[in-house]
Amino acid sequence: MLFFDKFFNPKSVAVVGASRTQGKLGYTILENLKYSFKGPIYPINPNAEEILGLKSYPSLIEVEEPIDLAIIVVPAEMTKKVIEEGIKKKISAFVIISSGFSEIGEKERQLELKKLSETKKIRIIGPNCIGIYKKDLDMIFLPKKRLKRPPEGFISFITQSGAFGSILLDIMANEGVGISKFISIGNKVDVDEIDLMNYLEKDLSTRCIAIYLESVRDGAEFVKTAKRITQNKPIVAFKAGKTEKGKEAVVSHTGSLAGPSEIYSAAFKQAGIIEAKLSEEIFDFSKVLANQPVLKDNKIAVVTDGGGFGIVAADTAINLGLELPALDSSSVKILKTFLPPYASFNNPIDITGDATVERYQKTLETVLKDKNISGVVCIALMQLPTLDDSIIDVIKDGKVFGKPITVCSAGSDFVLERNRKLEMYGIPVYPTPERAVKAMSVLYEYGKILKREETVKKKK
Amino acid sequence: MLFFDKFFNPKSVAVVGASRTQGKLGYTILENLKYSFKGPIYPINPNAEEILGLKSYPSLIEVEEPIDLAIIVVPAEMTKKVIEEGIKKKISAFVIISSGFSEIGEKERQLELKKLSETKKIRIIGPNCIGIYKKDLDMIFLPKKRLKRPPEGFISFITQSGAFGSILLDIMANEGVGISKFISIGNKVDVDEIDLMNYLEKDLSTRCIAIYLESVRDGAEFVKTAKRITQNKPIVAFKAGKTEKGKEAVVSHTGSLAGPSEIYSAAFKQAGIIEAKLSEEIFDFSKVLANQPVLKDNKIAVVTDGGGFGIVAADTAINLGLELPALDSSSVKILKTFLPPYASFNNPIDITGDATVERYQKTLETVLKDKNISGVVCIALMQLPTLDDSIIDVIKDGKVFGKPITVCSAGSDFVLERNRKLEMYGIPVYPTPERAVKAMSVLYEYGKILKREETVKKKK
Repeated sequence: MLFFDKFFNPKSVAVVGASRTQGKLGYTILENLKYSFKGPIYPINPNAEEILGLKSYPSLIEVEEPIDLAIIVVPAEMTKKVIEEGIKKKISAFVIISSGFSEIGEKERQLELKKLSETKKIRIIGPNCIGIYKKDLDMIFLPKKRLKRPPEGFISFITQSGAFGSILLDIMANEGVGISKFISIGNKVDVDEIDLMNYLEKDLSTRCIAIYLESVRDGAEFVKTAKRITQNKPIVAFKAGKTEKGKEAVVSHTGSLAGPSEIYSAAFKQAGIIEAKLSEEIFDFSKVLANQPVLKDNKIAVVTDGGGFGIVAADTAINLGLELPALDSSSVKILKTFLPPYASFNNPIDITGDATVERYQKTLETVLKDKNISGVVCIALMQLPTLDDSIIDVIKDGKVFGKPITVCSAGSDFVLERNRKLEMYGIPVYPTPERAVKAMSVLYEYGKILKREETVKKKK
Repeated sequence: MLFFDKFFNPKSVAVVGASRTQGKLGYTILENLKYSFKGPIYPINPNAEEILGLKSYPSLIEVEEPIDLAIIVVPAEMTKKVIEEGIKKKISAFVIISSGFSEIGEKERQLELKKLSETKKIRIIGPNCIGIYKKDLDMIFLPKKRLKRPPEGFISFITQSGAFGSILLDIMANEGVGISKFISIGNKVDVDEIDLMNYLEKDLSTRCIAIYLESVRDGAEFVKTAKRITQNKPIVAFKAGKTEKGKEAVVSHTGSLAGPSEIYSAAFKQAGIIEAKLSEEIFDFSKVLANQPVLKDNKIAVVTDGGGFGIVAADTAINLGLELPALDSSSVKILKTFLPPYASFNNPIDITGDATVERYQKTLETVLKDKNISGVVCIALMQLPTLDDSIIDVIKDGKVFGKPITVCSAGSDFVLERNRKLEMYGIPVYPTPERAVKAMSVLYEYGKILKREETVKKKK
């Protein structure tokens, strides 16, 4: 068992600062834990005997059973004492949710925690964070009514901003995109992105690591670690605080220093990290990288029932260095047997607005089998009555050909429900052709990162 | 009365090709018209006596009452005959939904329509389009169950792609963004973007014109027209078919020739048109331009309860040429009376994760009154229980200061419902800080376009 399993697969959990008052963080955390975590939970509160039906204890010391993980939500000035008690209780894994440390200039208080983590055999996540989310370990202090939880999946997300992280969780839930592990690291007094990257590297249920960063502890080690990991699984990173103004804001946010953005971009590149330049790209890129195979070369096809969207997809592909080659003549021959004469057999393949599910099925099969084509961007106007629900299976079944597929589909409730189903099957869906094509290009980029190392190996 | 009122405010409408068969275009169009249009509707179908409870006629000629507008959904080869009958019936406005013209190489068939429109006193919208949508004139052939209709508002949208247009309508409906008039122009055998721009220029309920273009009929006239209009109301345009590959696809889509993209960009600039470079920007930009005042200079403030989002907003603002000046010292003094000491009084103003609605209210008021600040990007983590529903009113009430406001807020159902309410009040909401700031920068851009003309006038 790895040490970090204490954080992610604890056998028992204590909540120090658990509250009986609905609306308080210590209440919501306990409530969410109770409905997710299957092992024993020990609320710690000197003024309560029972909270939410769980027996409460005045301090960690009073709990007789062993505790794997302590989640701390007491006021900042009390955290040190709680950790010292935890150490006596032989607890080695702590998550400090409480804020009130270096982010508000209380550097001394944070240093005390740092000293504890360095001199005692303990690890601390936080402070000033929203902790961990896993399907079976939900310590997020935002109520589910306001912030939905995403299904289980293959993305793990490390974030230095709690707000950013929580919104991402909510969006993932809304779109049906799965998460494996979510970790808000806040002021990262001890556990940082590098520790977590090392753990997630070996975690089988993590197929893509996504990171929101304001600063890194050790640039050289970060690059070295990422360089090794990206040969095994993709990393997507977004760096906030790129301008002077943004960097000033970083200081007052997590009390850390942001380096120059060019250095970050260069380091990401060197490390084989895919850089998200827009915040939404963390989400766009990680869901495709976690669920789809790489694009082995730059040759893709666009299949669409909306001409306009096909054009925009083509423009985007060309501008991103992808090619839309002609299909093999044998494929065109097959397409002509079932597509109407007014369809477009050029790439983008426009199967026109009266396309049926059958037309999609046969076209996708033909195109995905074509040796000239390595990946397909599938655009579907789900609003059309000619497309019944079986369109979902048809697109999903395209996976058997082993080539990557991304989908463009947008609209309101009716469409969004279908999109969610596609996401559940690991088919990433985007609201615009540009984003669907960009996601495809990222699969090509990651393929090149993998090849880069192969080339190095061969040279040796 | 302007001629185009026959299209947008007809007193009576005929649907030629109305169908009794559920699922057929001619059925859905009639159904949607019936539930939106208040005047008499005449279904035309030689094989029916009554459709959807409306008396049906074998041909346009048989209708005794006058008809202002004829919507045509018969097979392409029959359209000419229908129009000729319509001319006999003294109808002068036609919308041809039917496809099967130059987009599939049937140029001769389209030329026949063109000849009719040129020699007779009639105007034709289409063919190969989805027609017009207004709250009281819904001829969209997609059922409401699959494609929602947006509320009434101030954006009018001209689109050469029906699919693109219909998805935009659905997204607008989903986000609660209002539309005034939607016009799908398809192959534009007669009525084109210039005609409609001229009409919408004088339309009081249109405050922003959004255009999806693949080609323009007459570049010089387009620029001249737009240059005049943009001094009165903003125009946002997206040009599809920018690459060689994209242009090829345009030919098979609407049978028109796309010009070089650089020429379009230059023409847009000259005409004072705000160019949407991404398809989603048509929507992002038009909703802010239709509902918010211009940003008079480049000085904005960011108010946030999430530090990370504030940083990303600051980065974006600086990269777009906006400034985040320090607040006036008197404002800082006021802020210090109610914000906690750990808040950030620098711009971005971080009122921190425990912000209440009251804190937002007082901060927004102070910042919007500040003479150093001309507009505010307000970021709110709506998922936080400290923010009750009154946050909506507080943000909306910021409008009284006459300075533009854009909002960043994202998540799932709970948040999206609040966002919809903000949109109903004319406050544009964006899912990322980048997009909220970009929208603000577009208000600055439009302000400069207005000033440009003023400068010219002064010089004279």
